[in-house]
Amino acid sequence: MENQITFRTDVTVELVDAMASDKAVTKAARVSSGAEDLPERDAGLINYLMRDRHGSPFEHNSFTFRIEAPIFVFREFMRHRIASYNEESGRYKQLDPVFYIPGPSRNLIQTGKVGAYEFIPGTVDDTKLVQQILMDRSDAAYSAYLTMIDNGIAREVARMVLPVNIFSSMYVTMNARSLMNFLSLRTKDEASTYPSFPQREIEMVAEKMEAYFSSWMPVTHKYFIQNGRVAP
Amino acid sequence: MENQITFRTDVTVELVDAMASDKAVTKAARVSSGAEDLPERDAGLINYLMRDRHGSPFEHNSFTFRIEAPIFVFREFMRHRIASYNEESGRYKQLDPVFYIPGPSRNLIQTGKVGAYEFIPGTVDDTKLVQQILMDRSDAAYSAYLTMIDNGIAREVARMVLPVNIFSSMYVTMNARSLMNFLSLRTKDEASTYPSFPQREIEMVAEKMEAYFSSWMPVTHKYFIQNGRVAP
Amino acid sequence: MENQITFRTDVTVELVDAMASDKAVTKAARVSSGAEDLPERDAGLINYLMRDRHGSPFEHNSFTFRIEAPIFVFREFMRHRIASYNEESGRYKQLDPVFYIPGPSRNLIQTGKVGAYEFIPGTVDDTKLVQQILMDRSDAAYSAYLTMIDNGIAREVARMVLPVNIFSSMYVTMNARSLMNFLSLRTKDEASTYPSFPQREIEMVAEKMEAYFSSWMPVTHKYFIQNGRVAP
Amino acid sequence: MENQITFRTDVTVELVDAMASDKAVTKAARVSSGAEDLPERDAGLINYLMRDRHGSPFEHNSFTFRIEAPIFVFREFMRHRIASYNEESGRYKQLDPVFYIPGPSRNLIQTGKVGAYEFIPGTVDDTKLVQQILMDRSDAAYSAYLTMIDNGIAREVARMVLPVNIFSSMYVTMNARSLMNFLSLRTKDEASTYPSFPQREIEMVAEKMEAYFSSWMPVTHKYFIQNGRVAP
Repeated sequence: MENQITFRTDVTVELVDAMASDKAVTKAARVSSGAEDLPERDAGLINYLMRDRHGSPFEHNSFTFRIEAPIFVFREFMRHRIASYNEESGRYKQLDPVFYIPGPSRNLIQTGKVGAYEFIPGTVDDTKLVQQILMDRSDAAYSAYLTMIDNGIAREVARMVLPVNIFSSMYVTMNARSLMNFLSLRTKDEASTYPSFPQREIEMVAEKMEAYFSSWMPVTHKYFIQNGRVAP
Repeated sequence: MENQITFRTDVTVELVDAMASDKAVTKAARVSSGAEDLPERDAGLINYLMRDRHGSPFEHNSFTFRIEAPIFVFREFMRHRIASYNEESGRYKQLDPVFYIPGPSRNLIQTGKVGAYEFIPGTVDDTKLVQQILMDRSDAAYSAYLTMIDNGIAREVARMVLPVNIFSSMYVTMNARSLMNFLSLRTKDEASTYPSFPQREIEMVAEKMEAYFSSWMPVTHKYFIQNGRVAP
Repeated sequence: MENQITFRTDVTVELVDAMASDKAVTKAARVSSGAEDLPERDAGLINYLMRDRHGSPFEHNSFTFRIEAPIFVFREFMRHRIASYNEESGRYKQLDPVFYIPGPSRNLIQTGKVGAYEFIPGTVDDTKLVQQILMDRSDAAYSAYLTMIDNGIAREVARMVLPVNIFSSMYVTMNARSLMNFLSLRTKDEASTYPSFPQREIEMVAEKMEAYFSSWMPVTHKYFIQNGRVAP
Repeated sequence: MENQITFRTDVTVELVDAMASDKAVTKAARVSSGAEDLPERDAGLINYLMRDRHGSPFEHNSFTFRIEAPIFVFREFMRHRIASYNEESGRYKQLDPVFYIPGPSRNLIQTGKVGAYEFIPGTVDDTKLVQQILMDRSDAAYSAYLTMIDNGIAREVARMVLPVNIFSSMYVTMNARSLMNFLSLRTKDEASTYPSFPQREIEMVAEKMEAYFSSWMPVTHKYFIQNGRVAP
């Protein structure tokens, strides 16, 4: 039997649609204050809103992403409740044989104490070991999945055998405030006011989302960083 | 002293920005099912999602409205928690002398029992009475407000004297699912599966919002109506 | 190597704590209406609130559950955003070898069309096939997990090999309104106004949650059923 | 006509019900980590969760308050969306003649710049002026309200004349995480990491809520303060 199985070491993030700009932040903020709309003061206003944690003006916008990532990433992602989700369903369709394995640059060894783990590189053999085990087990699991499907077992039952490194895809829609909260928790940065220790794979997703964010709302992004990556 | 006071019998709803289409609903839904993207089946899919209350595909969109309405309308509006708000603040700016009075077509007399009130027209004298009282009291309240301001009293204290028929303005951002929930509760329609008895003034706001909604998402709106105005 | 692996065909739901009663619903509702607190009218009031979808009085209560179920159940569960979660983390602890397999009464064969699937029993051989495959693959996956752990690979990496039928546990806290929404979507009942087709395993969780709910809020539960299991 | 009007300079906060303890925080946190339940380490764990902003373990609890405060306070309060509300309705009942006026200790004069206003005491005459104006206008407004009611005008129309210093009452239910967010924004404290400049009257409500919070969850409250009153 030929699975044509695919192993990936990366993730995909595409921007499907967006309604977002720095200008919309300042316009919304000025509804509250009644202040005159002065473009030359926009940057200062955004800095002030970010610094003093006036978050609501950052909500009048919307980003829709299509994301491909392994299930263990989506499990963490969906803990973020101020967002809208539609994920590929293993109940409604047969899942494709695409699985995640850590690439050579993925740190594999955990050190440090609870709550502040650090990850350091493994040896080349460590990477080989992990990749080989994951490839073997993914392949065997997917074969078992197909065997059950071929025997008429319901997809929702057959999928129980699949490991959490199988890829899934989803649409997710968030506003900039929720997105900044996501980024503050799902990226690691020495300069953050509050430390975060995300799993590398969700950080890979977050980094790609942040690139879109900084492109659409560069001033907001700049002051998000300058103010310690604390979501307002 | 000249207040240049304004009395309005209407409300304002402007669409500031939108990211919305029927197509985005079906694209999000097909992420889940993995079904082929067939435009000729879009209407049927939207009807199915609405009827069986699969609400999440209706969330990947966004409408930002600027609304001018009296405070008693905003008090009801902001009970809707799946939305983003920025409202004019009486702490940061001096409020303008614009007040709501019921127009001639506004039913003034309440009949029926708790939970299912009906409103019927009053006499011409009823309308005159209400308008005259509201105009007199609004004018007196606003003069008192200015007196306190002129005496150096903080705006946030002076505003305590103002009645709930004073106008305010706000930005509000919602997705279509939350908007349909708002519309189902804030409009009255004999054909609704679940009856709602909104105050007329918030219904005036809702009707204007619904016009934008039906213009941007006509198929979604059509099946919202056909399925009894129940938000999915 | 001895995994002492455990296979379960059931789920666990324990009530950790609750603050809930029918009386609290009517007390909250009467804050709005200003009506006298008449115990003899409580049932009628709850029926009215449920029928006309006045949901807010059902929110002033709280249920905390501890749940043990396979990961594929938690994946569906956590799509419910009006709830609070703390789940066992495969990053912070080594996961135990407990896996789900469908019991003899679990229907294995899917019929019907998209959106309205029905499940019918498989043969005894079907059950054997599914159980054997899941046991074999779970055992092999867990051995692979241990091999990686034993070689010093980080837990968060090693866990990638584990299938979605591995058990996890979590605390979840919800109010009665959110709980009724969960029950309406995650149980199948011919008498429901809106049909739902949940996966059997999350329905097993939902049924146990519903038992606690009906015990703490019997009148609310009664009218939830009488009004077609539509969350207000 | 005799209104028997009442003027208050204070607010009321009663705890209706609670399901809350420091212990429930650590139990929920240890579900995630799988760590042993060690009471002697509870305080350290709570400090760690607060400091590094692991907020979810603080959500498995619930406080229901009954609050009496003027409408302008409720307007600010209800901007907090992670909470459940039932408020007295001017559509369903005739409102009582109870109005707020600032007491002698209420600072009346605003200084400083936008976003960082300070309030300083007014003179005795300032207080007299504000109290006298508010009492006169409240009395006149309430008389006008009764006149409309007596003429058969619907309550929801008649109430438009009432000022925002009229008292209302509500039930509000929140968990500790949402409550800490509320307290961080609605109290002023030099030691706060992020400055807040709440209106004094909502701060009066917040202070009474905080007293209940510190009584039910003293360790959580202690570390909330030690960590700069930043909600985790």
